[in-house]
Amino acid sequence: METYQSKAAYINDLKQRAELPEGFQCAVSSIKFHPLEKIYAKPLNMNLMLIKADEAVSSFGAVFTKNKFPGAPVIIGRKRLEEKTMQAVFVNNKISNVCTEGGEAAALAICQEIGKACQIQPESIFPASTGVIGWKLPIQDMIKAIPQLAKKLGRNETVEAAEAIMTTDAFPKLRSIDVGEGKIWGIAKGAGMIEPNMATMLVFLLTDLTISRENIRFALKEAADLSFNRISIDSDQSTSDSVIIMSSQKKPSIPPEAFQEALNKVCIDLAEDIVRNGEGTGHVIQVDVKGQMEESIALGIGKALVNSPLVKTAIYGKDPNVGRIIMAIGDFLGSNNIELPLDKLRIYMGGVLLFEENQFQLSVDNEEKLYQYMLDTALTPENFGFPEHNKKVEIEVILGEGGPCRRVIGSDLTYEYIKENAEYRT
Amino acid sequence: METYQSKAAYINDLKQRAELPEGFQCAVSSIKFHPLEKIYAKPLNMNLMLIKADEAVSSFGAVFTKNKFPGAPVIIGRKRLEEKTMQAVFVNNKISNVCTEGGEAAALAICQEIGKACQIQPESIFPASTGVIGWKLPIQDMIKAIPQLAKKLGRNETVEAAEAIMTTDAFPKLRSIDVGEGKIWGIAKGAGMIEPNMATMLVFLLTDLTISRENIRFALKEAADLSFNRISIDSDQSTSDSVIIMSSQKKPSIPPEAFQEALNKVCIDLAEDIVRNGEGTGHVIQVDVKGQMEESIALGIGKALVNSPLVKTAIYGKDPNVGRIIMAIGDFLGSNNIELPLDKLRIYMGGVLLFEENQFQLSVDNEEKLYQYMLDTALTPENFGFPEHNKKVEIEVILGEGGPCRRVIGSDLTYEYIKENAEYRT
Repeated sequence: METYQSKAAYINDLKQRAELPEGFQCAVSSIKFHPLEKIYAKPLNMNLMLIKADEAVSSFGAVFTKNKFPGAPVIIGRKRLEEKTMQAVFVNNKISNVCTEGGEAAALAICQEIGKACQIQPESIFPASTGVIGWKLPIQDMIKAIPQLAKKLGRNETVEAAEAIMTTDAFPKLRSIDVGEGKIWGIAKGAGMIEPNMATMLVFLLTDLTISRENIRFALKEAADLSFNRISIDSDQSTSDSVIIMSSQKKPSIPPEAFQEALNKVCIDLAEDIVRNGEGTGHVIQVDVKGQMEESIALGIGKALVNSPLVKTAIYGKDPNVGRIIMAIGDFLGSNNIELPLDKLRIYMGGVLLFEENQFQLSVDNEEKLYQYMLDTALTPENFGFPEHNKKVEIEVILGEGGPCRRVIGSDLTYEYIKENAEYRT
Repeated sequence: METYQSKAAYINDLKQRAELPEGFQCAVSSIKFHPLEKIYAKPLNMNLMLIKADEAVSSFGAVFTKNKFPGAPVIIGRKRLEEKTMQAVFVNNKISNVCTEGGEAAALAICQEIGKACQIQPESIFPASTGVIGWKLPIQDMIKAIPQLAKKLGRNETVEAAEAIMTTDAFPKLRSIDVGEGKIWGIAKGAGMIEPNMATMLVFLLTDLTISRENIRFALKEAADLSFNRISIDSDQSTSDSVIIMSSQKKPSIPPEAFQEALNKVCIDLAEDIVRNGEGTGHVIQVDVKGQMEESIALGIGKALVNSPLVKTAIYGKDPNVGRIIMAIGDFLGSNNIELPLDKLRIYMGGVLLFEENQFQLSVDNEEKLYQYMLDTALTPENFGFPEHNKKVEIEVILGEGGPCRRVIGSDLTYEYIKENAEYRT
């Protein structure tokens, strides 16, 4: 995806090529409501979004957060995986419906209402909610809006659907690939609180390619492991995050490897969009860990770097404080009692060798180069673009020769992150 | 320790009661030097600090960082534990001497020079360094300053010693307890990069109470586990941190439990001082985890809370966003596959019940109370004090009835933290 000079240009282009796969419709609307109204004099805005398959589909799957306090939609969604068919996804933003009195009943009541309005089984609807944890859904206001929402179902408002599920996201995230005679299409919401294992992230994937229920679930798990489980913004895992996929089976099947490859691409691109949308992201940080080591160790090293507050703040400050990279790797290995032949470790940033043979490779020239590199890769408002994937700080951690490469993506830690998160509810 | 209205008042009072245990002397001085001089036109300042026992002592011990890239002083210090006797500690700030060419040789050359100047064995000196990782020590400048430093040894400049080892610390940290006929005395350096397992922290403990080498090492490990290993500022573990203890054996012994209790108190107080000194600390956060569960799980819950960027920023913003507390606990338990009877979980903040029976206990009154609580416990410049231990955000996580209480202490995440760490080397 190319870089756009303005959000309007990006969204305009997105609209040209954001068509839903065959056999699906979507709709969006919004309501005003009062949470804990004595505190908030003005009503808040909540978006509602509905995706519906023309017929109930047997080929669907989902992966959910591992958080031990899952939101009511996640509890319901897990049960839905046992259903024979599925037909719709309903999403609200603003409130995440976690651990509140009657939260599950509220989500089920909404499914009931949608079932009535769309003439489908209430049990064939995945509910999803994102937003503040701890508040209750304004259930009466939501139910009142559903008949109108159902009437709006159509094939046009796809970018609006991607926008409706946003909270603090900077731009809508929508990816689509034409493959075989059909397509794989996806939208994502996610900004703060993202870390591997489905954290405060909602992803809805649709395809018209014929694929069995068993195969679509296998492919989804694989794609999620390679994408959403390898990004981290602030190391917190949310209570609500869900990746849901449905196939309308309207188009011929393609070979499993081709399906997997296309699904991986959609998911990896959405995952990168999410990181680039991180609350107050100043730099995207990409860590490639190469060498003969277990995948869990490689990913652990990558996450240790993108989650270290000291590494993150140094990159934000364009400070080539490479000692902090060593500190973070050494901390991860030491805390987990992992032995590696560290004398074979080399570290590069932006192609500049930082560390080799147990020693820092620092020089005045390199410090200047690295400073310039972090300046060039910063996502300032002037060079942000919508979305823009070539600007990132690339760190390579290489152990010896050969071996696989595992990639983790995260972001720096900025004033804007603090502002966004200290004042989220105000 | 009481609260002081100014740093001067605090330091003045400290000087009245900061006397060294019998049998020890200390000295401080400073040098100017040029690191990578083409970048820095102006020379930088480095403090040197020396503690010396009148005679070599057999009763000493140390605990070090678990980081897999330990600084040269830590590598040397670990070997020193095998020595029959020890007699001195030498510390420099500004540069931490980690993974540089000839770093170990540089530290040993300094020990050699101190040995000559003080007429003691070079092998009886613990070196310690704190500061930027990756730079080389200005070894020639340091060696030149040592004879003068040795001449200054005396019993007066104890507060100056605590000040000399500071980097971005807000105030010197010195604690002392009179017990039996002697005392236990300690100074600490530590601000950023602090987390359990000795992270960027230097602590030097001295006592004149007679105690065996075996017992002092046991007592040190116990005290460190209860204090320095239970604090966390930014979850990064440094490459250099060390806690070192020596006894001059000048005073009669006391029962082991009394020694342990006094050492614990000194260490816990120093640990709290360190958190309160955290780079850009806006609130101190204290988490008590109570209930029948393994210690590692209780401490894991506590650290998950004080290390969660979303919990930390919410507290900084005085936002009673208690959902994030649940999110962080659920994330820790889910990621580590830990099963607990969560229906028995209750959570309090500042005495206000937040969560019970799997549900948030929110109300307009409580939100207002919690906002006021976080306002009152903020360490604003006006109410900071030197040091001030009663202002903290107290979170209690209680599982069922009974069981032990484990405490973890950390800090919030503020604009000032970002500023301090993004611009550390500039």
